[in-house]
Amino acid sequence: MANITIKRLAQELNLSIGTVSKALRDSHEISIETKRKVRELAAKLNYVPNPYASSLRKRKSKTIAVVIPEVADSFFSLAINGIEAVAQEKGYHVLIYLTHESFEREKGMLGDFKSGRVDGVLLSVSAETAENDHIYALRENGIPVVLFDRVREGVETAKVVTNDFESGYIAAKHLIDMGCANIAYFSISKSLLITNKRMEGYKKALEECGIVCEESDIIFCANDEAENFEIIKTVMSSSSRPDAIIASVEKLTTTVYLVCNELNIVIPRDVKVISFSNLVAASILNPSLTTITQPAFEMGKTAASLLCKALEKRSFVLHDESIILPSALNARNSTANL
Amino acid sequence: MANITIKRLAQELNLSIGTVSKALRDSHEISIETKRKVRELAAKLNYVPNPYASSLRKRKSKTIAVVIPEVADSFFSLAINGIEAVAQEKGYHVLIYLTHESFEREKGMLGDFKSGRVDGVLLSVSAETAENDHIYALRENGIPVVLFDRVREGVETAKVVTNDFESGYIAAKHLIDMGCANIAYFSISKSLLITNKRMEGYKKALEECGIVCEESDIIFCANDEAENFEIIKTVMSSSSRPDAIIASVEKLTTTVYLVCNELNIVIPRDVKVISFSNLVAASILNPSLTTITQPAFEMGKTAASLLCKALEKRSFVLHDESIILPSALNARNSTANL
Repeated sequence: MANITIKRLAQELNLSIGTVSKALRDSHEISIETKRKVRELAAKLNYVPNPYASSLRKRKSKTIAVVIPEVADSFFSLAINGIEAVAQEKGYHVLIYLTHESFEREKGMLGDFKSGRVDGVLLSVSAETAENDHIYALRENGIPVVLFDRVREGVETAKVVTNDFESGYIAAKHLIDMGCANIAYFSISKSLLITNKRMEGYKKALEECGIVCEESDIIFCANDEAENFEIIKTVMSSSSRPDAIIASVEKLTTTVYLVCNELNIVIPRDVKVISFSNLVAASILNPSLTTITQPAFEMGKTAASLLCKALEKRSFVLHDESIILPSALNARNSTANL
Repeated sequence: MANITIKRLAQELNLSIGTVSKALRDSHEISIETKRKVRELAAKLNYVPNPYASSLRKRKSKTIAVVIPEVADSFFSLAINGIEAVAQEKGYHVLIYLTHESFEREKGMLGDFKSGRVDGVLLSVSAETAENDHIYALRENGIPVVLFDRVREGVETAKVVTNDFESGYIAAKHLIDMGCANIAYFSISKSLLITNKRMEGYKKALEECGIVCEESDIIFCANDEAENFEIIKTVMSSSSRPDAIIASVEKLTTTVYLVCNELNIVIPRDVKVISFSNLVAASILNPSLTTITQPAFEMGKTAASLLCKALEKRSFVLHDESIILPSALNARNSTANL
């Protein structure tokens, strides 16, 4: 159920919002009879007065929330820099909220924003998020939301994304060009649109080249490093070991390298590795890492610009649109054909 | 000048806070004469009523702010995880604020907290911060502060640190043991206590071994990657090129490696490198990186536990104390004696 607001009470009673507000504050301007009606309905609908929100409406918080799964991923630390560049220029505070890939936490955070703690929200959903209601609820409370990178289909707002399908295609095509025929795709979620789109691109490239994609070629990793180590170790120890890996998120890369080191599997001789990653250190890894590099800073900047525009101009509405900023392949030694 | 609070007005007028508050709200309970007095003083002292703060006092925000220079550094992303582990258990929201090494931004953020936006603050100061007034001002507003990692001397509160002096000593001693005699120390600030303490430890180790530390052995880097590349390139191109480098913060490491690659300087043969770093990828760099590894997660956890205790127990006061959690040397190939 949506939060009961003063607006709702006013609608139900056919009174102005100001009258309801005054009645609730026991103003002498309001008749005893009206006060009684307002209080009865408020009690009936379980209306909770929120001084925090009401004072905020008078005094805008000038704050935007950035809700993301983690900060250890360099995509997000760069995107934050882009967001802050815009926010600082426009005079907004930026608060960073981490969901740690938990849908419950994400839902709790967005629920909390309804009180007026923030003016607007930039959201990149968790790996667990498989519904949109919590995002709708926020928008219904008049708080604009712009999605970026990890977006959800069906949410009618602006979304800033990269060309995930094409990038997955390019990654797989690059590995095929380097002579690989048994390419594994490592995902972290069955519901995340970006990893699914990358996977579709990868499948398309395989199909075009006449390579059959087996179900066992798609590996779903967890949200825990130690667990992922075991998952990847099992894959790399099997008799049908892949000759190439696409890591759909950055954090899987280090684990892939560590597993290969432990099993004496040499990258790129025995297995080639490509990762979706913005790691500055990619070029100094052993071997240097081939990446699909997202325009992280630009994506943050674009998302923040749209949100600020929606906050400042009443006439500007966030349409249901996708702004696509393309990624780039950076071929390095981890996919070299020796 | 400190913010004018209702408390201050009450003290000056020898009235209760409740009376002043009611007078300012034009309550019928207060005499016209008292209202006049209160308003005159409020006008004289430029008192600005703050509905946001007053509503918050009734309804605690259950929020703690984490003010840190950046999130790209793995120390901070791990420390945040430690902080959030405690906060979640205790039912607090965690907001992350990034200063990007700017004292002005840090000051602005702490000033903003005085309005009651957060209940308490965990602070790791910027590389520019060279005074304590902004921290005092927050505490005077009744908002507890716990410092961690990048602490300031003289601030009378709990500080969670690592053994920076000893770690600097151990780093330099390790390089001397590996046969180095011309060890450069790369810092990012003249005012940061942690990098200065690490430097003092480094100097002590040199002195003990009869190595003279020249002023030119201490290199101050900037807050800009491109600029640091040039600074480090100049050092590594000079005729008196060091045979070892201590990077006092993680972000300098990648730049050091990239400069060496460009100049065809081979680590560890031509120069040995040790970095203060929590990088998970340290062991998969080329060559693997020797690190002084801080107990980042534990430091975050300890700082958050102290702050939560101060927020929940009126009897618990944050004393002026330093809780020291020791770091560890992880020797890898970047300092190997070939």
